[in-house]
Amino acid sequence: MQTAAVRHRPESEDCYLVTTETMKLRLHTGRDVKAVYVHYCDVHEPLTNLKKQAMDLAGHGQVNDYWETTVTLPLHRAQYVFEIHGEDGEEWVYGDRGFRKNEKESYEDPNNYFKLPYFHAVDMTKSPDWVKETVWYQIFPERFANGDKSNDPEGVKDWNPSDHPGREDYYGGDLQGVLDHLDYLQDLGINGLYFCPIFKASSNHKYDTIDYLEIDPDFGDKQLFARLVNEAHARGMKVMLDAVFNHMGDSSMQWQDVVKNGPNSRFANWFHINRFPVEPYDPADPSYETFAFEKHMPKLNTANPEVVDYLLTIATYWVKEFDIDAWRLDVADEVDHQFWKKFKAAVTAIKPDFYVLGESWHSSQSWLNGDEFSGTMNYPFTGQVADHFLKGTQDAKTMTELLTDQLFLYREQSNSAMLNVLDSHDTARIKTVAGEDEDKALQALAFTFMQTGSPCIYYGTEMGMSGDNDPDCRKPMDWSQAGSPVWQAVQAIIAFRRQHWESLSKGQTWLEVEENGLIHVKRTGKETIEGWFNTTGQAVSLSAEAALSRGYEAGQLASKGYVLSVK
Amino acid sequence: MQTAAVRHRPESEDCYLVTTETMKLRLHTGRDVKAVYVHYCDVHEPLTNLKKQAMDLAGHGQVNDYWETTVTLPLHRAQYVFEIHGEDGEEWVYGDRGFRKNEKESYEDPNNYFKLPYFHAVDMTKSPDWVKETVWYQIFPERFANGDKSNDPEGVKDWNPSDHPGREDYYGGDLQGVLDHLDYLQDLGINGLYFCPIFKASSNHKYDTIDYLEIDPDFGDKQLFARLVNEAHARGMKVMLDAVFNHMGDSSMQWQDVVKNGPNSRFANWFHINRFPVEPYDPADPSYETFAFEKHMPKLNTANPEVVDYLLTIATYWVKEFDIDAWRLDVADEVDHQFWKKFKAAVTAIKPDFYVLGESWHSSQSWLNGDEFSGTMNYPFTGQVADHFLKGTQDAKTMTELLTDQLFLYREQSNSAMLNVLDSHDTARIKTVAGEDEDKALQALAFTFMQTGSPCIYYGTEMGMSGDNDPDCRKPMDWSQAGSPVWQAVQAIIAFRRQHWESLSKGQTWLEVEENGLIHVKRTGKETIEGWFNTTGQAVSLSAEAALSRGYEAGQLASKGYVLSVK
Repeated sequence: MQTAAVRHRPESEDCYLVTTETMKLRLHTGRDVKAVYVHYCDVHEPLTNLKKQAMDLAGHGQVNDYWETTVTLPLHRAQYVFEIHGEDGEEWVYGDRGFRKNEKESYEDPNNYFKLPYFHAVDMTKSPDWVKETVWYQIFPERFANGDKSNDPEGVKDWNPSDHPGREDYYGGDLQGVLDHLDYLQDLGINGLYFCPIFKASSNHKYDTIDYLEIDPDFGDKQLFARLVNEAHARGMKVMLDAVFNHMGDSSMQWQDVVKNGPNSRFANWFHINRFPVEPYDPADPSYETFAFEKHMPKLNTANPEVVDYLLTIATYWVKEFDIDAWRLDVADEVDHQFWKKFKAAVTAIKPDFYVLGESWHSSQSWLNGDEFSGTMNYPFTGQVADHFLKGTQDAKTMTELLTDQLFLYREQSNSAMLNVLDSHDTARIKTVAGEDEDKALQALAFTFMQTGSPCIYYGTEMGMSGDNDPDCRKPMDWSQAGSPVWQAVQAIIAFRRQHWESLSKGQTWLEVEENGLIHVKRTGKETIEGWFNTTGQAVSLSAEAALSRGYEAGQLASKGYVLSVK
Repeated sequence: MQTAAVRHRPESEDCYLVTTETMKLRLHTGRDVKAVYVHYCDVHEPLTNLKKQAMDLAGHGQVNDYWETTVTLPLHRAQYVFEIHGEDGEEWVYGDRGFRKNEKESYEDPNNYFKLPYFHAVDMTKSPDWVKETVWYQIFPERFANGDKSNDPEGVKDWNPSDHPGREDYYGGDLQGVLDHLDYLQDLGINGLYFCPIFKASSNHKYDTIDYLEIDPDFGDKQLFARLVNEAHARGMKVMLDAVFNHMGDSSMQWQDVVKNGPNSRFANWFHINRFPVEPYDPADPSYETFAFEKHMPKLNTANPEVVDYLLTIATYWVKEFDIDAWRLDVADEVDHQFWKKFKAAVTAIKPDFYVLGESWHSSQSWLNGDEFSGTMNYPFTGQVADHFLKGTQDAKTMTELLTDQLFLYREQSNSAMLNVLDSHDTARIKTVAGEDEDKALQALAFTFMQTGSPCIYYGTEMGMSGDNDPDCRKPMDWSQAGSPVWQAVQAIIAFRRQHWESLSKGQTWLEVEENGLIHVKRTGKETIEGWFNTTGQAVSLSAEAALSRGYEAGQLASKGYVLSVK
């Protein structure tokens, strides 16, 4: 048995509270273990009171297996060791002081027990329940709909969905355009609106903020935004805005003051400045730090209490005055943890079930311990799904294994609050990633909607829109495709998700590739929901009762087809 | 190669800042790897700019090997993957999305890189520098010295160091007794005083606090304590007090109010109460939560903002008004993390280099991320050393391996701020654990003083005192042994530590058992300091230049002897 592969980290995603009396325990092993048991009791009880409980094999990762169970201790204190049986007959006791032979004496040393010394409600990771029943729709406001010609920027281009937008192009989309289409979104099944930035900024994408307390005049004004939030809420839709707090735009009053006054600027310590004067900017030897090497985006010094105060004022203003429900945090991983802890405390003090979503393109354990983000944009998930379903560069088994590895990086509270996106304003559109194959795109979408985490549709996906990497993925919305067969397929996937949200967001997940090559997803919650996805390149026989399907007829599942069943 | 044994956790003790431009990276593998490299560059640079650096084999654990290096990135952003060569010739690239073959394409996917997205000074784990040069002395005030007969409790017993104290016995030790012996402690080489509780309480041990804002009248008063702190500081000694914040004594005003007024008490929410009336207390079905099952110690509700405010007032009062340098936190692991974060912020706001030491008997990763404790009482270290050096129940190789495992649980900032105790008021004395064998006790002490972490002498160890588990380990101090050979040996070990503190607290650690059976410790810092410890039961030939030794003569190291050398 590979003892070196065994691991457990106390007070982490391997040991956490699910209620104030119940903890979830996980153990990582190699793929060579046949059974695991946990022995546990209260921290201050004699070890003669130990209870023994079998752990379940909960998933196969790329190189690890995962074992899991829940344990209840009414006195809120736990000590525990694991008993591990290898397939080769080896047996070990694994505890806080390493490995010992599986014999009676090995259970008698209290110092070899892992501890969860006290179950504190205040330390428990929570995530908002409403997120678990939400299907999001991401809106890039400049390109969704032009509802008010009077606020169009100068030189606005014709609303042509076949255009390939340039970096500096404007099409005139605005908040009135969104307001006009709330009923459309409701028909589609959406109950969460995720807006890319809407505050005053220089560019069409608005990630270079000039003033976080103003709506960009190209999009509308506060009165209009307030109406939009109210109308969304009236339809049961939540509203998420994009907070760009890693950096400001270089046209902002604060940065311009630094440019002008150098070290004497009262904002000199608001940024990360290496030397004065700050201009000209040389990426090979930067005079100031920026987002990436983008001189228009000077990085904010979020360790400066003045900056903290400024940004928290903004963060809370839009919650208190406009009743928004969520913040999506741009480049969140490059801002310090201390700031996000204060941010989370500030917004949840106003709305305890506020959703804090961090942008992060990689594993995010250090942000997901309950006191920073509720979830992150799940780009690692995106990557696995795209590599297999859309690009075909990764085999099915590796995908299910790596997705399983990802699930065991986080507590289930965090998993259920991840934003599962297949594309966004920052990536090529799924159909284009799939080589313009709409069947592949719909199959990947159906797979995504079967997973834990909150799924999100990028505007236009339901219209079968194409688009390469930014800025090509930001074409004007193709309204001509509303009601098309693709649109109907997306609507049906959303409806399935909404109907079965509870099992799909909270149920256990099992991912595998069956002998016939089908990808099989099993979600076990209130209901048992199963999905089969054919990526083999040929039709495969399958006997299943389909609640929703595509390409499934007479017991044959076509390639690129899927079947979802409910029991 | 056991890929299942490979692991790395971003932003943890496996990846952390040592300066604002330099990060330490660690990789855990099985014992079957022959080389590891890290490939790294800035997060926003093209991957064509990758640099490659070999990692050092930094330690052998019980089943794992540890690899380590430091990497400098002046733009404060890092992405990296590991290249791993197995002894069997297998080669792998290991990154954020798992294992890939070691070939060119595997380095080309930015999504497979681990990230430290930005190096924030404010997120860096720090520990006070002064702790690294401190040798502590733990004082149980009731038993150290009776300097003032006028404050002796009623029925005080004779000061007999051979007594076996009962649970309710008093001997009359007090703060004047400590003041009177500061010169003694200075002669011994001590520069840190760690006091068991001195606040008003019911028992001789004072862990059942009545009033945290009063010195117990058996021990003295505030004027005397202020003098004691000043006199200690004048001798370059730091002062640490014991904060018992997990629970209060049941004689406290607050708890008595709950007993009397039940749910109507204004302190009803200060504790964890399951039902009223709170008395009688039944451990089988507790009406209120306590420390362990100790009815005299009702557990404080540290999630109640009133309690937080009360305890932080106390915590800061003794720092601001009496200038103490450190708090030792009793039963710290059973108090919530949110409270300790506020505690750390409050005390370091007054003294940035304040030392926060948590009591914890097990692995403590979740408290040692920089924002809670500086270090913990290193009882897991105690356990390994005792099992081998003192009890002989664990072989030397297992001890060095398990001690190596412990070192890789934490960042080096935390390792150097652990309190390395071999015994305390809560354990039997080392000499007694060693079967009254003073040679073994001194050898274990010399070994401990060679390690990173702040070493601590329990009062009387330097006198060769014996004592079984609590309360027997709390005998009155045996002043007759001052200057004895044992005393001199302890003094010499302390002097060696003080002289070489920088290398011993900050140097790299290598632990191994040599072929001749000697335990070999190598500390590489400003100097190279080596130690050999003979636990084989017979003399062993050794050629070393001894800076300090015991049992080393004519190239022979006697069993239970040690040699420390400096280059």
